[in-house]
Amino acid sequence: MASLKVLNHPPSPSEDAEQLHKAFSGWGTNEQMIIDILAYRSAAQRNSIRKAYKEAYGEDLLKSLEKELTSDFERIVLLFTLDPAERDACLASQSTKKSSSSNWIFMEIACTRSASALLELKRYYHSRYKKSLEEDIAHHTTGDYRKVPTRAFFSPAFLLFPLVSTFRYEGEEVDMSLAKSEAKILNEKIKDKQYNDEEVIRIISTRSKAQLNATFNHYNSSFGNAITKDLKADPGDEFLKLLRATVKCLTTPEQYYEKVLRLAINKMGSDEKALTRVVATRAEVDMVRIKEAYQKRNSVSLEQAIAGDTSGDFKRMLLALLGAGDI
Amino acid sequence: MASLKVLNHPPSPSEDAEQLHKAFSGWGTNEQMIIDILAYRSAAQRNSIRKAYKEAYGEDLLKSLEKELTSDFERIVLLFTLDPAERDACLASQSTKKSSSSNWIFMEIACTRSASALLELKRYYHSRYKKSLEEDIAHHTTGDYRKVPTRAFFSPAFLLFPLVSTFRYEGEEVDMSLAKSEAKILNEKIKDKQYNDEEVIRIISTRSKAQLNATFNHYNSSFGNAITKDLKADPGDEFLKLLRATVKCLTTPEQYYEKVLRLAINKMGSDEKALTRVVATRAEVDMVRIKEAYQKRNSVSLEQAIAGDTSGDFKRMLLALLGAGDI
Repeated sequence: MASLKVLNHPPSPSEDAEQLHKAFSGWGTNEQMIIDILAYRSAAQRNSIRKAYKEAYGEDLLKSLEKELTSDFERIVLLFTLDPAERDACLASQSTKKSSSSNWIFMEIACTRSASALLELKRYYHSRYKKSLEEDIAHHTTGDYRKVPTRAFFSPAFLLFPLVSTFRYEGEEVDMSLAKSEAKILNEKIKDKQYNDEEVIRIISTRSKAQLNATFNHYNSSFGNAITKDLKADPGDEFLKLLRATVKCLTTPEQYYEKVLRLAINKMGSDEKALTRVVATRAEVDMVRIKEAYQKRNSVSLEQAIAGDTSGDFKRMLLALLGAGDI
Repeated sequence: MASLKVLNHPPSPSEDAEQLHKAFSGWGTNEQMIIDILAYRSAAQRNSIRKAYKEAYGEDLLKSLEKELTSDFERIVLLFTLDPAERDACLASQSTKKSSSSNWIFMEIACTRSASALLELKRYYHSRYKKSLEEDIAHHTTGDYRKVPTRAFFSPAFLLFPLVSTFRYEGEEVDMSLAKSEAKILNEKIKDKQYNDEEVIRIISTRSKAQLNATFNHYNSSFGNAITKDLKADPGDEFLKLLRATVKCLTTPEQYYEKVLRLAINKMGSDEKALTRVVATRAEVDMVRIKEAYQKRNSVSLEQAIAGDTSGDFKRMLLALLGAGDI
């Protein structure tokens, strides 16, 4: 469930475009007006506003926003205003230029987007970057570990590549005998610390979410522990951490995101990029569930936590996207 | 270029459906009429005929054909009549139930279909089999080698999974410095017989065909041999054979198919399944080029070779699809 509050009868796209253009004009920028418009429109409506803006003023709305805004507020407005496929492609492309921490972003995109959303991202990636998402991720993740051949950890490419590239089945059908046999395979490999075994990777990266859920349930009831608990064995192993987060992301994405937000907020100085990414990408998808998970785990609402940790227009934009513009 | 000869002004789909229904009626089946209709219609036209047939007679045309026809003729008529995505999904699904020789069919499909055709196959696979192509291929190819752990060969899953799952970029842009650096990587790994190195697999399974062509050209001019020649090192290594065929399939599919046809025809008793698969899947795509490659390599036309090696309705259907119904 989305936290985004979309107006029932919003102004026409060209009226919105005109208001935005006014917000950029004169002395100073009217940030509140930008929030009041963009944080209360659906992806389809924002696309229409971009089109109307381009027609009326000959410039991409994103370009104008870039010129007018700065810092964290700029980043969240730009990221949220983008079409979801375009936004994911930007996040992924930026991640191919960064250190190994960006592997988590590939994983997050691969596990939480629907098969068709992932496909739209890939189409957009082709048209924008003139290459495939797969080749960039494979190149980035393989290269990463090429540079540190002495570390004993497994290459994240083994996991990330199949995760990102599979066109996963999304039906609810479950094969219970398969769930049993694959739970057994997982348990054996995990006991032997064979975390990058091709069977483990195969099961996690290709089976449908419904099937995986059945497999993990069976794992839990047959072997005494949740698989996520058994994947906690070695806290220093980055590959294992990524694998564990993958399992969480595939089965309980709201808990995965709750943790990302918790760490971002609790961090000294807070991690604005992570906050921005989660809020901008989930506000229209499952932010209501993420807020519930946050409240449950932290005994404080996500809105209060964010309000206490951020300020100014950035804070106002975050709260608006959380559906709590009036906190 | 397609060898299929489609009529400029074919009868309406319902007229065709009626003629087919007549061909099935009475004493015996009129095979020639079936050929005269189905082997001269495009995929879109065949789909329309199926719809019209279903509406008029309440049965899928494919079901009726199955009842009326037998043996090799049945197989090629059914396979050709199917919509390309459906046909590829059938071929792939049958291959997941067979021995390791079927790995070649996965490779062939992954390398010679366009990104969008491969996607259509995957969509159809979801709707028909209630699971993903990727999970079946990963399960099949991993399982295959699980059973023979003593063999030193590499698992085909390493190669086939990324080949099938990548949504490959199809533009003509080439990065020449990347082509140079990746040609060097390939040469180093091949010299060390590291055929399943993740860099080798990454390059071959994710780069665009235009980019790969530049890389292989650079390989040839810098290291003295075509990459396909260097991949001939160990004739007993099945993984290496598959890798070599993959390179051929990605860059010169007509030469790959020429060889499949040559082996199928020269085989004692000939390999009707391979003949059927190649003719049914390529007649509407690039059969003219394959015929040219065949003539060049064998100094005899493909039509003559097939005519000398097959007989009856099967032969007539093959020749019709090759555009040589009157040989």
